[in-house]
Amino acid sequence: MKSAVVEGGAGSAPCAPSREADIGDKIYQLVKDIFPFCRSVAGEGVRETLRRLKQEIDLVIREVPSGTEVYDWTIPREWTVRDAFIRNASGDKVLDFRACNLHVLNHSAPIHARMPLRELRDHIFTLPDQPDRIPYRKSAYAESWGFCMAHRQLMALPDGDYEAVIDSSLEDGSLSYGEYLHVGASDEEVLLSSHICHPSLANDNCSGLALLTLLARHLAGQRTRYSYRFIFAPGTIGALAWLARNEANTKRIRHGLVVSCVGDGGGPTYKKSRRGSAFVDRAAGHVLRHASPGSAILDFSPYGYDERQFCSPGFNLPVGLFQRSLFGTFPEYHTSADNLDFVQPEHLASSYSMIQAILCVIENNFTPVGTLLKGERQLGRHGLYVGGDGAPAMQSANMAMLWTLNLADGNHTLLDIAERADMPFAELLSVARRLQAHGLLEP
Amino acid sequence: MKSAVVEGGAGSAPCAPSREADIGDKIYQLVKDIFPFCRSVAGEGVRETLRRLKQEIDLVIREVPSGTEVYDWTIPREWTVRDAFIRNASGDKVLDFRACNLHVLNHSAPIHARMPLRELRDHIFTLPDQPDRIPYRKSAYAESWGFCMAHRQLMALPDGDYEAVIDSSLEDGSLSYGEYLHVGASDEEVLLSSHICHPSLANDNCSGLALLTLLARHLAGQRTRYSYRFIFAPGTIGALAWLARNEANTKRIRHGLVVSCVGDGGGPTYKKSRRGSAFVDRAAGHVLRHASPGSAILDFSPYGYDERQFCSPGFNLPVGLFQRSLFGTFPEYHTSADNLDFVQPEHLASSYSMIQAILCVIENNFTPVGTLLKGERQLGRHGLYVGGDGAPAMQSANMAMLWTLNLADGNHTLLDIAERADMPFAELLSVARRLQAHGLLEP
Amino acid sequence: MKSAVVEGGAGSAPCAPSREADIGDKIYQLVKDIFPFCRSVAGEGVRETLRRLKQEIDLVIREVPSGTEVYDWTIPREWTVRDAFIRNASGDKVLDFRACNLHVLNHSAPIHARMPLRELRDHIFTLPDQPDRIPYRKSAYAESWGFCMAHRQLMALPDGDYEAVIDSSLEDGSLSYGEYLHVGASDEEVLLSSHICHPSLANDNCSGLALLTLLARHLAGQRTRYSYRFIFAPGTIGALAWLARNEANTKRIRHGLVVSCVGDGGGPTYKKSRRGSAFVDRAAGHVLRHASPGSAILDFSPYGYDERQFCSPGFNLPVGLFQRSLFGTFPEYHTSADNLDFVQPEHLASSYSMIQAILCVIENNFTPVGTLLKGERQLGRHGLYVGGDGAPAMQSANMAMLWTLNLADGNHTLLDIAERADMPFAELLSVARRLQAHGLLEP
Repeated sequence: MKSAVVEGGAGSAPCAPSREADIGDKIYQLVKDIFPFCRSVAGEGVRETLRRLKQEIDLVIREVPSGTEVYDWTIPREWTVRDAFIRNASGDKVLDFRACNLHVLNHSAPIHARMPLRELRDHIFTLPDQPDRIPYRKSAYAESWGFCMAHRQLMALPDGDYEAVIDSSLEDGSLSYGEYLHVGASDEEVLLSSHICHPSLANDNCSGLALLTLLARHLAGQRTRYSYRFIFAPGTIGALAWLARNEANTKRIRHGLVVSCVGDGGGPTYKKSRRGSAFVDRAAGHVLRHASPGSAILDFSPYGYDERQFCSPGFNLPVGLFQRSLFGTFPEYHTSADNLDFVQPEHLASSYSMIQAILCVIENNFTPVGTLLKGERQLGRHGLYVGGDGAPAMQSANMAMLWTLNLADGNHTLLDIAERADMPFAELLSVARRLQAHGLLEP
Repeated sequence: MKSAVVEGGAGSAPCAPSREADIGDKIYQLVKDIFPFCRSVAGEGVRETLRRLKQEIDLVIREVPSGTEVYDWTIPREWTVRDAFIRNASGDKVLDFRACNLHVLNHSAPIHARMPLRELRDHIFTLPDQPDRIPYRKSAYAESWGFCMAHRQLMALPDGDYEAVIDSSLEDGSLSYGEYLHVGASDEEVLLSSHICHPSLANDNCSGLALLTLLARHLAGQRTRYSYRFIFAPGTIGALAWLARNEANTKRIRHGLVVSCVGDGGGPTYKKSRRGSAFVDRAAGHVLRHASPGSAILDFSPYGYDERQFCSPGFNLPVGLFQRSLFGTFPEYHTSADNLDFVQPEHLASSYSMIQAILCVIENNFTPVGTLLKGERQLGRHGLYVGGDGAPAMQSANMAMLWTLNLADGNHTLLDIAERADMPFAELLSVARRLQAHGLLEP
Repeated sequence: MKSAVVEGGAGSAPCAPSREADIGDKIYQLVKDIFPFCRSVAGEGVRETLRRLKQEIDLVIREVPSGTEVYDWTIPREWTVRDAFIRNASGDKVLDFRACNLHVLNHSAPIHARMPLRELRDHIFTLPDQPDRIPYRKSAYAESWGFCMAHRQLMALPDGDYEAVIDSSLEDGSLSYGEYLHVGASDEEVLLSSHICHPSLANDNCSGLALLTLLARHLAGQRTRYSYRFIFAPGTIGALAWLARNEANTKRIRHGLVVSCVGDGGGPTYKKSRRGSAFVDRAAGHVLRHASPGSAILDFSPYGYDERQFCSPGFNLPVGLFQRSLFGTFPEYHTSADNLDFVQPEHLASSYSMIQAILCVIENNFTPVGTLLKGERQLGRHGLYVGGDGAPAMQSANMAMLWTLNLADGNHTLLDIAERADMPFAELLSVARRLQAHGLLEP
């Protein structure tokens, strides 16, 4: 693999800054496009979304029939919802699915009935603590029906009879997921995965879907060391369906990230793989430490997104979770406030840049070896000394060379050096290439 | 040993809460019963105490003759004290052993002499910093005579001649210690030891003696994985005498605790074994972290109680020290204020409960193995999901299942899982049994 | 080597306190003697200094011809400066080398020219932030000429023409360095190195040169376990020249210290070797922790003094850097304020004492083995118990014995014990010798 490493090290794609200066706007536009679709675990909403992503990259869409057993789970029926509302005695709609698809319990069974408010209330979910926001709720594995509503609005409803209508169906069909493979020099893979089962929630997870799609498009024209596998699948059951169909192939996965909630201004947050010291854990930890003083590196726990499946003990893949604000910790989480105002192009762009930086470490890490190990190099003689009068940038440039040369003994990778020097990997990568070009490191 | 483990894991004694709800009161009563005896390193006071403990458990009382060489030490002569007082010129007793046995230097030689106060003073110990308390002092290995007295009282004595009487004798006899073995499924042993050489000091160590005695009685009717050996011996020399007589048997000791000062409201404190990472050190550290925010886990040092002997390099046994307030750090320590008011039933009960919890970990730790390792379990399908609306208790119950299943790969014991999940061992043990009952873990 | 260890352990030199009570004054006097010489990388200034040191110890002075290739470097020409000044139009000297040799750019090419101030300014270095101090600057590897001056003085110069004279020459000759070997029982060596290339800077590094010279003189009459090699060489190129001539001998170096800036009142500071866990790193860390609450232990970095060369990857020697204030962090650094007032006998003496304490650990560390490992020793029986009424010194003396005996199992060196007991090595060494004398440790 040595040659592949060196080849990759000589300028591979993920380190090259995106040629699209307006990448934040482009991701945001794609978020906007897929925001309205009423996704669920299985049904047309997912397929509409996948078709939109396919306009950007050559996505393969796969179907898994309802009823298929997947480890401890069963692929559910497809959910179709045509309309839903609650009408008061005067015939006015007091809740309307067309205004916001969160109003219907996701994967809800159909209902058409008239009942008094006190009875209907048992089927209405609200957030008393956030009385103006509609909660997102789902019931994919137990058949029930229900609505979601702003608490203040529910409180304002007068007693009396209401007509509850959910014009939905739950029928055998299939669960859909999308897959895209960027082929690199090696068949060792980097897995990048985003869940696609939530309806109109912008951060969770239109943001992740859009970011990974445009990252895949960016890679398309590039030569890389690793192959990159993108998966857009419904949470839990979709990831499990992919794993069940690809058990043998999981051996190829060397690194991976689950990506969601990447459009808000919080974090960044990285949750480590179950292994805790996988290379991706070190790479992401390194990048985040240098990206922001507010970054949080969390240990693995068996609660969260699809890293739970990839890291279940039978797979135990080296896959972590990248987010901005951690799921469940921001008030907009799983509410109607997770909308197109909550995500911003600038945050999408910086998330994109951090994920690229993590992949840059994975793609380009190598073990530099100095051509002279005895004594310090005289940088000036090689035209490498950055002169000036002690300005920090100059000092940093010289220190990066000194660190790289001092640790280029064949026992340290560039990430080892970056960590010991406490400098960004990308800066040391650029220094290492310069030192190679001047003959101070082996080519 | 696998079967013993599983057998033990299925409901063994130390985890079962004591059936005696009033355990604190019962321990306290026993403390009261043994408090008055005038114990010393060797003599009738120890035997009276052992006979009282034998009313609770089937204690074996052993005798080691004076003069026996025990490693670097020699069993001292027996001490008998019949009376002791100081009388002033008018014939009034200004100090009386019958009022408090701390008044006599423990193991004091006899004296009957009249002398001026300035001469007598050289033989009177006081605590100038705590002028109303009588200190506890002993002289077991160097012959001398003396009294202990409240400093304020000594200061108030007028000059003049006094009659000093200590009607004691130091004669060849034997050192006594008590031993009790609860036989479990395995002949591997847990050692539980309390020193029995202090006179009327309630916390140090009537409390430890009484607690271990009632714990032994509680175990008597139970099936356990380990055998439990209880030792009630005079400090240092008693522990060494036991070690010298049982050198070969020390190989069986897998875990152990020295127990003293367990009736005050401080701590809890755990001082690690010399090994520093023995299983009992992990178990006690785990239990104490969850028991109290004020708990202190201390590294081993060669100063303290009989853990010094069990942990001397030639034995290096996995034995730690459990206390409430650490010896030497509370003002009542080794004074007449360490009396029956200083120890309380509630503290005795909570110490009992913490020691039971430590033994529960030792007794029940095992390596759970999931019956399906690929993908997360669908808890709802198995009737295990604890529903509700995100209340902490519900979340904790589900998290305990998720952690156990995620780490049930054959490489983690239940204590490993409890530490990684940061949850009490007992909670995970109950969860693991439930998961076994539902077929999600191997039986 | 066991016998050498024991021999060394029985009272070897570096632990014996210097017989010279006025060692600080003696070091200071030597600092004063060598302060005036105008040292540079190569030239007569270095030789004058070495000749003065040779009055104290039997120094060998070695010469390396200009033009010799030394790894990535070339031995420069010798610099000779006879006079230098700037004269104004009236013929008054506004800068005079004879007042302070920092006034001339070290290793400056000759110049004799008249030019307007605005042109001359490009060749004058000042410190705007410290306007009354003359900076120290050098140009050993690129030919240029220049002056150094107080900023305030430069600002006060009226416009007009000035006469700039540097009567210097750069000619082939040789670089000089001094070497002194104290022969011990073993041919394993401790390296002690101080740079000798700076002109009149008292702390950096007349202090290091003087301290090591008097330490070498102190060792001269002593029996030691290790051999001690002292090197007084120009920074970087001098250390490299020594390494190039002694490559095979570097295998003998077991421990080492670079010593500079040891006369100010800051720190102490120890910068670890590149290995990070060399024995000298542990020994110095231990000594400094006990020496001062203000001590700083720093990780290796490839910037600093000659530890950079000794620790370059092809050598990777176990050599750290001992300083008081860390180079570059004190305002007097590399200015005319680093003068004979800045260094003080008391600081030189305490630096000397700390370096001795580090060498004491290196020289005397051994693995004590108890003659009885079972049970605690009865210190009183051996006349070793330090009685009294709990005073801290008494407790500490007994604890030192208890720790040593408890860990004297053949698996712990005396430094291991000192670290675990959190007591100074020298105290435990004295205790261990006492225990050996009483037969409690093997001889």
